[in-house]
Parts: sequence; structure tokens; C-alpha cells
Amino acid sequence: MTYCVGMRVRDGLVIISDTRTNAGIDNISTFKKLHTLCEDDERLIVCASAGSLSTTQSMLSMLREGLSPNPDDGPDAPRRTVENMPTMFRVAQLVGEALALARRGIAATLHGTEINSTVSLLLGGRIGDGPLTLYLVYSEGNFIEVQMDKPYAQIGELKYGKPILDRALHWESPLDEAIKVGLISFDSTMRSNLSVGLPFDLIVIPSDAEGPVVRRRIPEDDPYFTWLSAEWGRLLNEARQQIKDPPFLSERA
Amino acid sequence: MTYCVGMRVRDGLVIISDTRTNAGIDNISTFKKLHTLCEDDERLIVCASAGSLSTTQSMLSMLREGLSPNPDDGPDAPRRTVENMPTMFRVAQLVGEALALARRGIAATLHGTEINSTVSLLLGGRIGDGPLTLYLVYSEGNFIEVQMDKPYAQIGELKYGKPILDRALHWESPLDEAIKVGLISFDSTMRSNLSVGLPFDLIVIPSDAEGPVVRRRIPEDDPYFTWLSAEWGRLLNEARQQIKDPPFLSERA
Repeated sequence: MTYCVGMRVRDGLVIISDTRTNAGIDNISTFKKLHTLCEDDERLIVCASAGSLSTTQSMLSMLREGLSPNPDDGPDAPRRTVENMPTMFRVAQLVGEALALARRGIAATLHGTEINSTVSLLLGGRIGDGPLTLYLVYSEGNFIEVQMDKPYAQIGELKYGKPILDRALHWESPLDEAIKVGLISFDSTMRSNLSVGLPFDLIVIPSDAEGPVVRRRIPEDDPYFTWLSAEWGRLLNEARQQIKDPPFLSERA
Repeated sequence: MTYCVGMRVRDGLVIISDTRTNAGIDNISTFKKLHTLCEDDERLIVCASAGSLSTTQSMLSMLREGLSPNPDDGPDAPRRTVENMPTMFRVAQLVGEALALARRGIAATLHGTEINSTVSLLLGGRIGDGPLTLYLVYSEGNFIEVQMDKPYAQIGELKYGKPILDRALHWESPLDEAIKVGLISFDSTMRSNLSVGLPFDLIVIPSDAEGPVVRRRIPEDDPYFTWLSAEWGRLLNEARQQIKDPPFLSERA
């Protein structure tokens, strides 16, 4: 299993992903799920993946090789890559096409088994002065753009960690706050699903194109996350104690 | 969708269920999902259901009519009912058998459609001086008994409301506290899934067989739940503000 959350707030884009993979519950490994698709002077484009590791790797290889040129672009058109797409929207289309191709290839080899070949993605980044954009790409290759009204998207084991995002994350949340809320969401998920685990990968891309991009691996023994996890548990416990008891038992007379 | 939670703590048994059903998202109704299977001087046995309403109603009708006598019990054996089972374990077996029968009947009529005929149940109660028992009955008819180490079971839309139960509910939790934690779990679920909604049905059966059984319907405008929902949101907000910001951005220099 996997859990990844992408947050597109006013000040920038934050993606956090876990790194635990499992083939059955007795075969657990660490794999990086946050991939850099393109990074040069003009563009920074990353994606996080949840689902079949073989479909994901196949898709990433296809994108590196480039997809067949579009016949409409003439006989000498180059292969289509993340590097030569003009907009983030066109990148999302290309990634969706590669994902659908990879999935169909893998699904054919898995026919008759119960092994799942689906993958969903968080795709984010920016090209030149274009807008900083976050997409949720479904396993069929279609996608939606994350927008202000609900400034986040999740893939993988998403339900345990969704309530805190719904309550606490807003378009106006500062980047520090978004990271904090994202990590609380991970803490809730890890407590209820053992197949989501540390280390986490974090990337922060500020809306200000001149601002610094931050990349971190948050390790098993990260002092901040360890403290956050204990402190959040303590504060929730205190909050619960402050809720007065229900009247339903005392009214029974 | 449905959400029901059953809690078996030292002082007794609490079951809370919502009442919202939907056939598609444009056909939403209120149906009672907390059913009394048997109530007399000797026994009180209830169940809450999640899943196909037609399978549930079919199962309840079968249990009222009684299942065919067991051939081993001789030619004059009565039909098997919740009323004439000697133990809660035997009641759970009977309910599981009725559930599997009902599901098979409905599934046959639904063959070729994508409509789901499965149902899962929380089954709780007591016979005479026997132990107060809570079972989680799966749609295949097998079941597990809820025990001290994890003193709750959920059916339906369970993930959103699970973290608070994992953190806060213990065997030693008083009944008032269990109801409170259960309602917080409902509050989180309702915020993330619109198909779970008020009114709720609540039953509390104390471990002390002489203690009063409490039944309540918690309506849309219940003042305690309305207050709890707002207060819990406020306290979570305060708790989040008390968590200091992560160091990941400031360490970037």
C-alpha cells in the first residue's frame, strides 16, 4: 500500500509520499515513489505514484524514451517527452497516455491472475512562467486539476488521513502549515494501516518561481515527526477529555 | 452507505448506527439499521447492518420465520430461531446462516448486474446470565467476537472514523466515554462521506444484567451532538495550532 498527498496552496505546492511497498504482507520493501520527471532551467515536474510498481516503472521508462510522435506533427516530429511539451496540461495528457499504455501492457500479462495493474498519480510542477499546477491522474489516464476550493489530492490509502485535511487545509494555509497538516494526515494513516510507513519523501515548490525548492527525506527516526506524532496524540487526548460526557445515560431515569 | 460502530467495554456494550441509505446518490432515504432480534425476560439480542437493504430485510424475515430444523435434532424439532438458541455463539451461527442464505437468494436475482448483495453485521446481546457478547458477522456468514485488546468493531464506511477509536477507546473506557468517542468517530465520517448521516440510533446494554438498557434516537438537531461536532472541530484546530511548524523549510538554507 501507499499513501501520498499533494497540496496546492496559495504559496506553493507540497507533495509528501511514503516509501513502503509490499507484495503480500510478508514482502515489504522501501521504494521511492516520488519521481522527478524533468528538471532543468525552465521546468520542474514531479510525480508521486500509488499502485502497481511494475506499471509505474514501465510508465517512467516510456516517458524517458518518449512516446511515438503525433502523425499530425509531420514526418520529422520528435518523440513526445515531458521535456518538449509546451504546457503542464500537455504534460498531464502525455503522462496519462503513458500510464494507460503501460497499464494495458502489464494487464495483458496479468490476465487471469488477481494481481492489480492500476496506478494513480499526483503530477505537479511548472514550466517557465506558467502556473504551478497539481493534477490527480487516474489509472485510466484521465486527470483533474487540484483547485482552490479543495486544495489537495490524495492517492493510495486515503481515507484514514482525509478528515484532518478536510478540516484544516485551506488555500490560504502557509507552506509550513500545509506540511504540518500533511504529516498529521500521515500519522493518522500509519496508525491504522501498517503498510504505510516511514521514511517519507517531501518536496516543496514555492509559487514564487524565484523561491527555493525544498526536497527532504524524512527518516524513520526524524526528531520532528517523532515529536509531532507523540504531541498530536497527547493533544487529541486532552481535547477528548475536554468534551463533556453525553447526556444519554443520565437522562435514562 | 452506512456507518455503524459496536463497542464492547468493561462496563457494557454500545452500538451506534446511522440511518441513511442510498440507491445511487440521488435516492437517499432514512431506514433504521439497528434491529432488535429478540427481547424478553431472558434475552436481549440486537444487530446493526451495513450493505444491501434487500438482503438485510430478507435475512430478518428468515430469522422471524425460523430456519429449517436440524435433521440431527429429530423429527419433531422446532424451526431454529434466535429465541430458541441456547447461547450467543449459537445465535451468531444462526444469524450467519440466515445471512448467507439471504445473500445467495438475492445474488441469484442480481446475476449479471453490478448491484452488490453483501451485508455485514454487528450482532450483540446477552442470554440469561451468559456473557454480554459482540460479534462482527461477515457477509459470508462467518464471524469474530470482539475482545478486550481491540474492544470495537465497525461496519460500512469505516476508515474515516477508525483513527479516533484506535487512539481513544480502551476496555476500561467508561460507557459515557465510549459513546462520546463513538460520536466523534461519526462526526469525522460524516464530514468526509455525505452518505453517512443523522439521525443515529444508539443502544447501551450494561454489563451488569440488572442495569438499565438505554435506547435513543439522536436526531438531526440533537443539541449534544451539534455541540460536540462544533467543539471537537474547535479543539482540533487549537491542537493543530499548538504543534510547532516543521523545520524543513527553515533548514533549507
